[in-house]
Amino acid sequence: MGLIGGIEAGGTKFALAVGHSPTEIIARHEIPTGSPAKTLEEAAAWLESHGQISALGIGSFGPVDLDRTSQMWGHITNTPKPGWAICEIAGFFAERFKVPIGFDTDVNGAALAEHQLGAGLDASSLAYITVGTGIGGGLIVGSKPVHGVAHPEMGHILPRRHALDLEFIGICPHHRDCLEGLASGPAINARWGASLSELPSDHIAHEIIADYLAQLAHTLIALTSVEVIVMGGGVMKTPGLLDRVQHRASELGAAYFPGNTKHKIVAPGLGDQAGITGALLLAPSA
Amino acid sequence: MGLIGGIEAGGTKFALAVGHSPTEIIARHEIPTGSPAKTLEEAAAWLESHGQISALGIGSFGPVDLDRTSQMWGHITNTPKPGWAICEIAGFFAERFKVPIGFDTDVNGAALAEHQLGAGLDASSLAYITVGTGIGGGLIVGSKPVHGVAHPEMGHILPRRHALDLEFIGICPHHRDCLEGLASGPAINARWGASLSELPSDHIAHEIIADYLAQLAHTLIALTSVEVIVMGGGVMKTPGLLDRVQHRASELGAAYFPGNTKHKIVAPGLGDQAGITGALLLAPSA
Repeated sequence: MGLIGGIEAGGTKFALAVGHSPTEIIARHEIPTGSPAKTLEEAAAWLESHGQISALGIGSFGPVDLDRTSQMWGHITNTPKPGWAICEIAGFFAERFKVPIGFDTDVNGAALAEHQLGAGLDASSLAYITVGTGIGGGLIVGSKPVHGVAHPEMGHILPRRHALDLEFIGICPHHRDCLEGLASGPAINARWGASLSELPSDHIAHEIIADYLAQLAHTLIALTSVEVIVMGGGVMKTPGLLDRVQHRASELGAAYFPGNTKHKIVAPGLGDQAGITGALLLAPSA
Repeated sequence: MGLIGGIEAGGTKFALAVGHSPTEIIARHEIPTGSPAKTLEEAAAWLESHGQISALGIGSFGPVDLDRTSQMWGHITNTPKPGWAICEIAGFFAERFKVPIGFDTDVNGAALAEHQLGAGLDASSLAYITVGTGIGGGLIVGSKPVHGVAHPEMGHILPRRHALDLEFIGICPHHRDCLEGLASGPAINARWGASLSELPSDHIAHEIIADYLAQLAHTLIALTSVEVIVMGGGVMKTPGLLDRVQHRASELGAAYFPGNTKHKIVAPGLGDQAGITGALLLAPSA
């Protein structure tokens, strides 16, 4: 039985796996994200150590070029991460392994995994949001990731400022106080000097961050009527945060949306495995 | 050659058409929206006067129930419009004509028409926004309207308040100052006592309304990477408004989104015919 490979290419670490299928993983590994040359070489060497793979799926941090007709297909494009702007990912592995490569954003991969194997089984549509170093989202409609011109960049919506959070300027280099600039891990740290889970549970930060994330959920429902919103990533591990987001999103919606009670905001059914499982799902089948 | 019928069921008027196909209309008619019983009867009688149709497509104002397994399928549900809440539309015509009925929101129909025959030919995805008595939107992904749990209600996103528009409370009965509560025709009239096109071109209202509508465009791009955003409806006929929305959306995006230059905000390619053409496209083909 053949092997497929998966790479979840993150800004902090690369998660790697080989398996007979996305649900039959035989080995996993993680490497810290260093320079592109070193990181890609290490990832390739680890995959090679498990024998010949027949296909590889890559879910990458972004922005990425997903246009198969573009010279930049399979590249990370204008990331602020040092060394990684205009960096070829998919082509490196295509050259090395001579196998078909599936390439998409990490969050589109995770959304696919949650829809096929996790919290969104049988859901008509699903969004996967990660709240960590950055904020990103992938959207599944008709069982496929939504691409449009390129891919969603959900962290860059412009939420209403919370009345008790009007001073902080925001940390997004492009939009300052977009969602990522206000509610990502580094944004939380920038104004309160701690992560959300380090702050006492009665600290106003919990209410403020839940309000911003609930605005993303509200907006997703208004624009796409999405059935299941999965919220993962490091910040979402803060005790009580998911409850607060659910509660606040319900307040914002005011029971207006059609099919209102069918909308769900949930934790990842696959836990931390959504990303790597998604990468394996992106591997083209023979 | 057989005939198909189309009904664009609006809160102000019902537009009717019969044709050999969506592009071969042989007769059109409009009737003012009165009580449901009277309006539906008049629509049916006009359609009957043109001979036997083989299928009927209906694009309706909403919210509507689109779940074919629901007892409420084909009904308008919780509209504030007097007399029309919990009103059966599709079932009335199915009973009368004994033909297959296609039923969706008016804006999903218009989006389909603009994608297949209008401003979005060959676009990977398209949103159709109407700004008039209300604000609504439909979204086409993979050549089909996006449904999710039910259908989008794009007018109910929560834009940031413009710095020069902080007093007005908003007119949405559910959310007060959601987009529809701030930027629909009645909301414009409520604070300035005139329509946008009646106000001088240097009146601040133009900048304020453009800012709110640009936030919808920005949010659609962030969440779906949508390629073409078509903006129609009465308010969008205000001279200069589309330009202002394009300009403001570009400012908000700050050239960040991947594939940035491919995103377009345009007027309807089908002009005022997007809705009725969409209704005809919703008619099931034999």
